[in-house]
Amino acid sequence: MNSWIENLINIEPYVPGEQPGDGVIKLNANENPYPPSEKVGRVIREFDYRKLNKYPDSNGTKLKEKLAVYYGLKTSNVSVGNGSDEVLAFIFLACFCSEKPLLFPEITYSFYPVWADLFNKNFEEVPLNPDFSINPDVYYKDNGGIIIPNPNAPTGIGQREGLLRDIIEHNQNQIVIIDEAYSDFGEYSAVGLLKDYDNIIIVKTYSKSRGLAGQRIGVSLSSEKITEKIEAVKNSFNSYTMDSLTLEVAAASIDDEEYFRNCINKIKKTRENTIKHMRKLGFTVMESQANFVFASHDVIGAEDIFLKLKERGIYVRYFNKPKLSNWLRITVGTDDEMGILLRELETICL
Amino acid sequence: MNSWIENLINIEPYVPGEQPGDGVIKLNANENPYPPSEKVGRVIREFDYRKLNKYPDSNGTKLKEKLAVYYGLKTSNVSVGNGSDEVLAFIFLACFCSEKPLLFPEITYSFYPVWADLFNKNFEEVPLNPDFSINPDVYYKDNGGIIIPNPNAPTGIGQREGLLRDIIEHNQNQIVIIDEAYSDFGEYSAVGLLKDYDNIIIVKTYSKSRGLAGQRIGVSLSSEKITEKIEAVKNSFNSYTMDSLTLEVAAASIDDEEYFRNCINKIKKTRENTIKHMRKLGFTVMESQANFVFASHDVIGAEDIFLKLKERGIYVRYFNKPKLSNWLRITVGTDDEMGILLRELETICL
Repeated sequence: MNSWIENLINIEPYVPGEQPGDGVIKLNANENPYPPSEKVGRVIREFDYRKLNKYPDSNGTKLKEKLAVYYGLKTSNVSVGNGSDEVLAFIFLACFCSEKPLLFPEITYSFYPVWADLFNKNFEEVPLNPDFSINPDVYYKDNGGIIIPNPNAPTGIGQREGLLRDIIEHNQNQIVIIDEAYSDFGEYSAVGLLKDYDNIIIVKTYSKSRGLAGQRIGVSLSSEKITEKIEAVKNSFNSYTMDSLTLEVAAASIDDEEYFRNCINKIKKTRENTIKHMRKLGFTVMESQANFVFASHDVIGAEDIFLKLKERGIYVRYFNKPKLSNWLRITVGTDDEMGILLRELETICL
Repeated sequence: MNSWIENLINIEPYVPGEQPGDGVIKLNANENPYPPSEKVGRVIREFDYRKLNKYPDSNGTKLKEKLAVYYGLKTSNVSVGNGSDEVLAFIFLACFCSEKPLLFPEITYSFYPVWADLFNKNFEEVPLNPDFSINPDVYYKDNGGIIIPNPNAPTGIGQREGLLRDIIEHNQNQIVIIDEAYSDFGEYSAVGLLKDYDNIIIVKTYSKSRGLAGQRIGVSLSSEKITEKIEAVKNSFNSYTMDSLTLEVAAASIDDEEYFRNCINKIKKTRENTIKHMRKLGFTVMESQANFVFASHDVIGAEDIFLKLKERGIYVRYFNKPKLSNWLRITVGTDDEMGILLRELETICL
């Protein structure tokens, strides 16, 4: 009896950063402290809700055209989705049909092993260097595909083009994903490599640098052959993954390059100030190419600091995992928010 | 060389109804001819875009609470997603982990076999009765799960509770999905059966009866045990499938029951008039419990009519498939749109 229960899936989901209510300082989900462009506000205010009775453009053509111009590619190189998590899930289904294991860093975005489990893909978490940087040598072995997040999370460390080319050159028979969720906050993007390699995929999100976490917008850039397969999976999963309003919001965000650059520059400046101050308080802090800092105190335990900050209404991210248990990932907020954080850290650490 | 191409997926996607530009009469995607509630318009106009920098509520708690009240269930019985297509895709992953075949009607929503292929689930398309109604006997055999769309598409035929109970009673070891995409236009919903059976799932969409195809909102209702697994899959795929605005739009739509009922009543009235007139023009038209009619002309071929209507700027749905090749599925539009359709059908058929 009740044997239907045996046919239910057995899986351990990804756990996102806590979503506390208002009145706290939220530095635990790498959200942008600044709102999206005012052009986004206008598009929403002026949107004609009466047309919502019709389906959106399933292909998202206008948005793809705009993205193609922005990145100097063709529309047939662009795929869009309901956040980069959805885009990555489609790529797992579309591109990794080998029995050989996927390779990705042992310390990285913890959603990668979850997708692999969900879609029954073999994988191997390969080691980082002791300083948390990526070691290209461990990606030379036989594999079914590679994911390199650049900059990596939660470390914030960005790799230069030479290292990426090295890994790609050693893997011309595999697909290499470069997950650029945070690259807008760094100094390098691998988009230019699409000219040289047709086996790579660049993934972007609008949740971080464009301040649109609440709207769910993700992008992938790849050769036509690969893009076609990502689209085939999308069209085999949900014909309309992006709603009519989201398609317009994404386009409006692209149209305000100046605002986008200003926000990023402010965040970078705040990041460098935060790193400098935290080091004075006895933290080891990695150089960051992202909108967060990765830090470990030389005396006080990370979990202890995490709990004390939470008591004081400041949420940062603590991962209770091997090799990460003495580290905190702290999103870069506004100057005011980081001022409050630093004052609280002072009372906790000094 | 280039063996990465061999690792790409091989799949035949679902093809939705064409999306022609403006200036045509679009009766090919079962969209609602009426806009969503004015309350939806207000929520969008007054939405504070500045909060989009933060992630949405991953769990959609407020919306689930509202839906639970609406359907007389607990919040733990409700799952929500980015359209019912996404919800159904999650259910395929969450609930059908048996090697035995899924069963669903040979003539039905053509996305079911696409999800089965995408996720490597065995399936068998079982026959309908010659009059296109569902034959419960063919669901008595050993299987890995069952999908009954009620009313079915593209036939529009609705089954009564007795038949559903019969199928469920014969399948207490399997999960039975009742896809109620169109049930708001009929006389019966199976939601009441959730009291008696913990192995069933009811799926709803806001794309048809609530005029929100452009916003992507889907709902599933099931026992706690099943709902938990659907949520586990959702959280293993994309932490935030519904954006902040969509969560508010869905809630606003629920809040306007009167408008919702009025639209449905108008569509039902137009449907009955359309059926009556089409029969006078020599069509065999099925009794419909949906927002479309399923019709075959006694003399003129369906493809011929489809193409002639398209030339005249009227899009209906034609399926070039065995057993369907002489039938058209025509969405019920406004009285004005159906008046134009009927006049054109007159010139084509008389």
